[in-house]
Amino acid sequence: MTPVTGKTRLFGILADPIHHVQAPQRLNEHFAAIGFDGVMVPMHVRPDNLASVVAGLRGMENLGGVVVTVPHKTAILALCDEASDVTRKIGAANVVRREADGRLVATMLDGEGFVRGLQGEGRQVEGRSAYLAGAGGAANAIAFSLVQAGVSRLTVGNRTTAKAEDLRQRVLALYPAADVRVGTADPSGHDLVVNATSLGLREGDALPLDVSRLAPEQLVCEVIMQPKETALLLAARQRGCDIHYGAPMLASQVALMAEFLGARGARVAGTA
Amino acid sequence: MTPVTGKTRLFGILADPIHHVQAPQRLNEHFAAIGFDGVMVPMHVRPDNLASVVAGLRGMENLGGVVVTVPHKTAILALCDEASDVTRKIGAANVVRREADGRLVATMLDGEGFVRGLQGEGRQVEGRSAYLAGAGGAANAIAFSLVQAGVSRLTVGNRTTAKAEDLRQRVLALYPAADVRVGTADPSGHDLVVNATSLGLREGDALPLDVSRLAPEQLVCEVIMQPKETALLLAARQRGCDIHYGAPMLASQVALMAEFLGARGARVAGTA
Repeated sequence: MTPVTGKTRLFGILADPIHHVQAPQRLNEHFAAIGFDGVMVPMHVRPDNLASVVAGLRGMENLGGVVVTVPHKTAILALCDEASDVTRKIGAANVVRREADGRLVATMLDGEGFVRGLQGEGRQVEGRSAYLAGAGGAANAIAFSLVQAGVSRLTVGNRTTAKAEDLRQRVLALYPAADVRVGTADPSGHDLVVNATSLGLREGDALPLDVSRLAPEQLVCEVIMQPKETALLLAARQRGCDIHYGAPMLASQVALMAEFLGARGARVAGTA
Repeated sequence: MTPVTGKTRLFGILADPIHHVQAPQRLNEHFAAIGFDGVMVPMHVRPDNLASVVAGLRGMENLGGVVVTVPHKTAILALCDEASDVTRKIGAANVVRREADGRLVATMLDGEGFVRGLQGEGRQVEGRSAYLAGAGGAANAIAFSLVQAGVSRLTVGNRTTAKAEDLRQRVLALYPAADVRVGTADPSGHDLVVNATSLGLREGDALPLDVSRLAPEQLVCEVIMQPKETALLLAARQRGCDIHYGAPMLASQVALMAEFLGARGARVAGTA
């Protein structure tokens, strides 16, 4: 990293827990690669304090914005001044840009990041069926993006069925011709199986879906980056499934995040 | 700098303007030298937003604290929960530690830093007379420390005379036997001449004192670090005075700041 000075533009990542986040490393590497004088730092914020912290961030003139992750992706949206229509429909955001006047503009890049991450590893999305565990912030983003990318069928499994049904309705409102269903914990009968809950982040977490129903022809995908080998991925591999790690979802978002946050350098990444 | 991760402890410096601050460079060097996983970043905060930013900082669980500089050193004190008696008498603080429960503990290290910085360059303070320009946060701290270090006489010159008189009274309350006076812009008749105003920080600032009255036997001292060669120091040198830069005041505080902020590493600085 280049040294931080008074001229360095500031960025944060809001999360709880915080230890596992990878955005500081990835964004700071990207800033260095493009020759941009910025630094992203961890900001550990509990849900009760999110509103006061965000109010404080409005008053930091050199703050370019924040990345937002578990458990704040849904709550952050109501604290921002502006968001795209799709982000509003998703009902969650993972990046917030601070404008010069303190206004906060939110967007959700998780879905695009996830799909790009899959495709970047040569995985086909279009025409395949997908099971999605979760109906929170990341799950919402991924649901919209999977449908946009042309999955043949999307099934949402969530402990609280009403939230899955709500997500289904919102996806259908934007993509009326899509085949979107509410499912159970059983992922069988789908080509892609995606964990978009935070289960697996903490040791001792329950599994996000019924792993006894996984079959070798399924590709099991994780959004959790740390630990890399979640209990779900270990179980999936034991059952002969192919697996997709959580890291590509962030990796494929880094340039999009930096662009949205106004972090433009003198160089293009990879040409240094 | 070592890479910032989710485990890195966060520190800030609150200032307006921000570009000139040196604390991030000095503290981050110190953190690296002692093997402490921490990062200090600039936080540009205007006076109107100080209260809301500080309220937000209480909710950042991984924030160890902040360094506070112009123009917030006086205002910060009322926003903190705790401060030493001397810090309360000084009426200003330049370091705030965030306790695990979000409580904020303030202290003022500028005075000790300034006097140590002088002494560290072989300058005698005890028994010498001193002229101090300013009656703001840094000036208050330096006044108390100069008297504590045994100056024979202290004269405070400030545009608003009432503030100088108030400072005089507070110093005398703690050191009744001291010779403390309220002066004018004329620094003549003092061994040490100290600028403790922020005049010189911005291009086109007025001079903090009447430089036409400077004489070659005087040592002219600056608290401003950036620019290094302020208009005052240039004028002093032209008049044949010896000069003392602003940098040692921070340099001699760095270890004190880190200690107060709870930044303790595996190594002792300088032994790496």
